[in-house]
Amino acid sequence: RAKRLLLSQLFQPLNLQGEAAGEGKAGEPTCRSQKLMLQAGLIHPSGPGCYHYLPPTVRAMEKLIKVMDEEMRAVGGQKLNMPSLGSAELWRASGRWDHMGPELFRLADRHGKNYCLAPTHEEAVTELVASQTNLSYKQLPLRLYQITRKFRDEPKPRFGLLRSREFYMKDMYTFDASEEAARQTYDLVCDAYRSLFDRLGLPFVKVRAATGSIGGTVSHEFQLPADVGEDRLVLCPDGHFAANVETLNEGQTTCPTCGKNLTQSRGIEVGHTFYLGTKYSSVSNAVFYSPDNKPQLAEMGCYGLGVTRILAASVEVLSTEDGIRWPSLIAPYQLCFIPPKKGSKEEEGAVVLERMYDDLGEALPHLAGDSVLDDRTQMTIGKRLKDANKLGYPYVVIAGKRVCEDPPVFEVWNQNAGEVLFLTKEGVIELLSKVQVP
Amino acid sequence: RAKRLLLSQLFQPLNLQGEAAGEGKAGEPTCRSQKLMLQAGLIHPSGPGCYHYLPPTVRAMEKLIKVMDEEMRAVGGQKLNMPSLGSAELWRASGRWDHMGPELFRLADRHGKNYCLAPTHEEAVTELVASQTNLSYKQLPLRLYQITRKFRDEPKPRFGLLRSREFYMKDMYTFDASEEAARQTYDLVCDAYRSLFDRLGLPFVKVRAATGSIGGTVSHEFQLPADVGEDRLVLCPDGHFAANVETLNEGQTTCPTCGKNLTQSRGIEVGHTFYLGTKYSSVSNAVFYSPDNKPQLAEMGCYGLGVTRILAASVEVLSTEDGIRWPSLIAPYQLCFIPPKKGSKEEEGAVVLERMYDDLGEALPHLAGDSVLDDRTQMTIGKRLKDANKLGYPYVVIAGKRVCEDPPVFEVWNQNAGEVLFLTKEGVIELLSKVQVP
Repeated sequence: RAKRLLLSQLFQPLNLQGEAAGEGKAGEPTCRSQKLMLQAGLIHPSGPGCYHYLPPTVRAMEKLIKVMDEEMRAVGGQKLNMPSLGSAELWRASGRWDHMGPELFRLADRHGKNYCLAPTHEEAVTELVASQTNLSYKQLPLRLYQITRKFRDEPKPRFGLLRSREFYMKDMYTFDASEEAARQTYDLVCDAYRSLFDRLGLPFVKVRAATGSIGGTVSHEFQLPADVGEDRLVLCPDGHFAANVETLNEGQTTCPTCGKNLTQSRGIEVGHTFYLGTKYSSVSNAVFYSPDNKPQLAEMGCYGLGVTRILAASVEVLSTEDGIRWPSLIAPYQLCFIPPKKGSKEEEGAVVLERMYDDLGEALPHLAGDSVLDDRTQMTIGKRLKDANKLGYPYVVIAGKRVCEDPPVFEVWNQNAGEVLFLTKEGVIELLSKVQVP
Repeated sequence: RAKRLLLSQLFQPLNLQGEAAGEGKAGEPTCRSQKLMLQAGLIHPSGPGCYHYLPPTVRAMEKLIKVMDEEMRAVGGQKLNMPSLGSAELWRASGRWDHMGPELFRLADRHGKNYCLAPTHEEAVTELVASQTNLSYKQLPLRLYQITRKFRDEPKPRFGLLRSREFYMKDMYTFDASEEAARQTYDLVCDAYRSLFDRLGLPFVKVRAATGSIGGTVSHEFQLPADVGEDRLVLCPDGHFAANVETLNEGQTTCPTCGKNLTQSRGIEVGHTFYLGTKYSSVSNAVFYSPDNKPQLAEMGCYGLGVTRILAASVEVLSTEDGIRWPSLIAPYQLCFIPPKKGSKEEEGAVVLERMYDDLGEALPHLAGDSVLDDRTQMTIGKRLKDANKLGYPYVVIAGKRVCEDPPVFEVWNQNAGEVLFLTKEGVIELLSKVQVP
């Protein structure tokens, strides 16, 4: 049988003190996801805006990455991986070496050559595609993406993984043969983003956005409404219009379509899409050969999803004040099993619960690595259930009073639905057979 | 049915010119893996010692990472992810801010605070574990690892991914309650490394090694013998002794066990293990509480595997002069299907081959995403087979002359074994059912 995952052996330090407990430095604002993730041993600060991602977070992140890979592959995305060091020449050519200002981390190598730590890769990918000197229109659209660590020297890193100086981003860059084709690509990738957020069960709005330092002519943000969000949004109550306030004309307070008053909201930006046109392809001369064999500049788009930010934003919008809730699909562990307290009168139920744990792993192998056994049997069931509630396992299986019945009955908490069921072993397996793991 | 992977649509620029073709800058040494990987569109240079990993390389890397994850999990490894920015204070405390010299990339943030781009994480992980103030001996051994991008400002980056300035490394850090336990951990992780290289089919030697800038008292390297390797090794012909020459006493030419003359070899270092003792735990005061509740310094070890280096080293030692060979388990794609040339007399066999492609994906779903259809039917089968040989698919399925027989017979090249088989559809599926994908 598969090795049991014992909670006591997992590296997830709980109940830490001081800054690590999510209290922040004196006077520093904090938010729910930051507090909860610090308290639950999901992240640990290493310096301003820099965090260790502890094992449960890596599990959630790898699941999220799998879902992103599926969505990107579904739109023909091909995954590559570009260097973090971006040369000053390359960034000067696009004008962004100066334009990005102090947000770029900069360094010189041992030969005095200057680099930035790339926050994004428009220049690099365009240069790469431009180096393919015989690119044909038949090879387009080209949709390249990566999921890597990015760097930004934030003036005010804060809110844990919501605004940090190192973060993971999924960034896609697309190359099309015409503006029309590029706009089709744009819509396709936006649909993939919708699909992703739908699968995660995250309420999002797609809003008109400013193009900022990336550039281009059309841009949208995918925002999760939340009070702690740094973006201010306006929404038409009938859904005709949604925009970041940055894009509004001065004094605009009504929907341009139906004239109704716009409502205000705050949002956490979790995705951003740009139609770039030839802004970058013209700098690097990224051309393809048309049917009549003429070189033509590729029409580009770029598309970002904040990987670590989506993790934190999910926790921010789904959690209760003292209990983390994950999108079920990407919870670090799907299940927690709680055996009886040592010395309690249900103690003999421990063996029954452990058998349940093993049998479930055999019946549903995809959940075997997703099930934790809370072996801290010196603690009451109640205390451990409280921890389980705090950590946000979608399901908790408890050996309560009825575990000694024949057949044994388990208490199953569906934490996301907020309901408790009493089920036999077969019932538990039946219930959990619907649980998906990416 | 699953979408077909058409070779013409894959981003893998072949036959590039100049440096990208693996010729190197004037006077720069090159090696087989560098040439082959550049020519095959697996990597593309972005600057000195920095490479884009193109889609097939990312596929191979993700497979290799899966195998590493399996091996690390099997020895109780828990995966985390530490920041790339390492603060100067932290690195000064261990003495390595100065000791590492110009190999550390260094930078200052917008507030003038100094950082390095971490090439390794002994300081960071020890600090992290030290922050868990109530660590009990019951929670040990603790075996933490990550697989992330690392940075080293090499004096002479060269040989493609064999010695680059950005690279991926799997680094594990272990914490034990006693020296004896730490040595058991050491042996266990070394066994996991053996298992990994065995599964990849890579011939390796484990040699006694110097501890260098990492420190500690015991160290071994896992080396792949290769002329281009930068390490010089000595081996006892009867296998009693193997060491990096750095560790030899002056004038030592015979095996300390059997007295036979040592033979010389060169090797590519692909793994390195260190027993660290308390070198780092004493700096960060990383303690655990013993059974009698006394704080005691943790006994540490650290263990590295070069992820991108293993990819290149595999290509280096397995390939022919003009054909890449991968360890089967991690080849970017397992299969290439070559339909007949357009206008040839076997042209009608194209449909038969495409059906073979689809049926295989249905019969063996784990290979569906691993099968490429070489749709460049304007080219002869011979030319495309030459490319397939160059790219190193473990299996190539060709619609040759006998595809028009009843039942159709396919020509199957097992490139790693160097043999050709003539098989019906059932035979092909039977043969390929043994192919593993991590």
